[in-house]
Amino acid sequence: MSGGLGIIAGGGELPRAIAKSARAGGRSVFVLALNGMTGDWARDYPHESVALGELGRAFRAFKAHDCSDITLAGKVQRPKFSEIKLDARAVLAAPRVIAAALKGDDALLRAVVDMFEREGLRVVGAAEAAPDLIAREGVMGRTKPNAENLADIAQAFAIARAMGALDVGQAAIVCAGLALAVEAAEGTDAMMARIANLPEHFRGTKSKPRGVLVKAPKPIQDGKTDLPVVGVETVRNAHAVALAGIAVEAGAALIVDRDAVVAEADKLGLFLAGVAR
Amino acid sequence: MSGGLGIIAGGGELPRAIAKSARAGGRSVFVLALNGMTGDWARDYPHESVALGELGRAFRAFKAHDCSDITLAGKVQRPKFSEIKLDARAVLAAPRVIAAALKGDDALLRAVVDMFEREGLRVVGAAEAAPDLIAREGVMGRTKPNAENLADIAQAFAIARAMGALDVGQAAIVCAGLALAVEAAEGTDAMMARIANLPEHFRGTKSKPRGVLVKAPKPIQDGKTDLPVVGVETVRNAHAVALAGIAVEAGAALIVDRDAVVAEADKLGLFLAGVAR
Repeated sequence: MSGGLGIIAGGGELPRAIAKSARAGGRSVFVLALNGMTGDWARDYPHESVALGELGRAFRAFKAHDCSDITLAGKVQRPKFSEIKLDARAVLAAPRVIAAALKGDDALLRAVVDMFEREGLRVVGAAEAAPDLIAREGVMGRTKPNAENLADIAQAFAIARAMGALDVGQAAIVCAGLALAVEAAEGTDAMMARIANLPEHFRGTKSKPRGVLVKAPKPIQDGKTDLPVVGVETVRNAHAVALAGIAVEAGAALIVDRDAVVAEADKLGLFLAGVAR
Repeated sequence: MSGGLGIIAGGGELPRAIAKSARAGGRSVFVLALNGMTGDWARDYPHESVALGELGRAFRAFKAHDCSDITLAGKVQRPKFSEIKLDARAVLAAPRVIAAALKGDDALLRAVVDMFEREGLRVVGAAEAAPDLIAREGVMGRTKPNAENLADIAQAFAIARAMGALDVGQAAIVCAGLALAVEAAEGTDAMMARIANLPEHFRGTKSKPRGVLVKAPKPIQDGKTDLPVVGVETVRNAHAVALAGIAVEAGAALIVDRDAVVAEADKLGLFLAGVAR
């Protein structure tokens, strides 16, 4: 940790939370904002805005700001290849990255990580860049999971981990022993929203919330790539479809930001649990 | 096969296809129609209509019509327990069936199968009741899968089988190496419909269909319970979301009815393949 932390910032709350946490820990932070994806918060930090494909410019910016470590965080809409403008450095990297992208998200991330490491930058996961975001073991708020919830959590972890191993998705919803939804390319929020379309006796209702959302890391996500993230929106979306709560793997998920998430879960009556693997 | 075949007929085209096939094979057929689920076609056969929960009546009807074997076929909407009226025989069976239902579809089916077998009725799968519906190995129509489709098929089988092993669902959609959708409680048609909501560069378009639907049997579906079914509607729905084709496991899926399904696939330019395990 000799130099500063460079954050390649996609959308959502995670990159901002990492920046805040790293700065609070006394580290210098530089934000590489992606055009159209990163929020305005980047202005609060030394930053530079680039388009996807401006790889040479990214390398130069990290070096100019004395970054020794970089982290990739936040949502990046999988781009249409034809819309990416490649700079000279990116043209050299393109064949490898495209080949990787065709194999799935994890292969793509590994290829991107390799590329930065060949430039002498250490790629670290959010867990290392901002350790206080990591979910700890135990129930995080006032609401506790009941016996049915605990059984649903175990079942949903088995499903989410099986799908993670195949590079499909990270999340699953189980209600009273029935698998209601499994995440693939649509993402967690779209997956949650659709359980409202299932017959009412499959799932919870406003008066009687039931079922759990579980997010599990993909086994091949080795801490250098995105861990599952739970934020205030996740809690609100889970409440909107009458789930009883949310569980993540302790030590292998990010809670962004924790105080607000726990407050929202308490307010809405959902449990939020970190479960040891 | 000493006596007739009794068909417990849910919704959809499968029970009718089984009845037609068994009768064409020279066997006497009796249809147990479920109120509100079985189509009008049951009138073409000796039949009796019952409500879910009229178990004693079902046993008597099968005996009165000299059925030695019965088969369960077609879609049965998972009922709300409170809406089921149980006759005396069903009250005896209820605790066991309810306990099984809470464990998932497969456990429920096994419990129902056990119940009939204890009454001396042999429960046979659609594969045995109507062997000519079984998918054979090879491409069934004029359109052939290309190299990308073949890779997507292999990947989608891995996903569908992993989910089947956990009693989640039977189907998955993969397009160019990316898992677009995994089936859970929503069923295959709802799963297919939602890929239209994904960004266009993830999937096929009208002018360039891409991606495959795969349906795989659950490992614990031992031929006594429902095999995956592909019908004309499946082909139409796959075409509506610009998939390139459909693959099933040879010997472990039902094509209902084959001539019409192949004609529709040919007309719409989709491939339909039976793949050896």
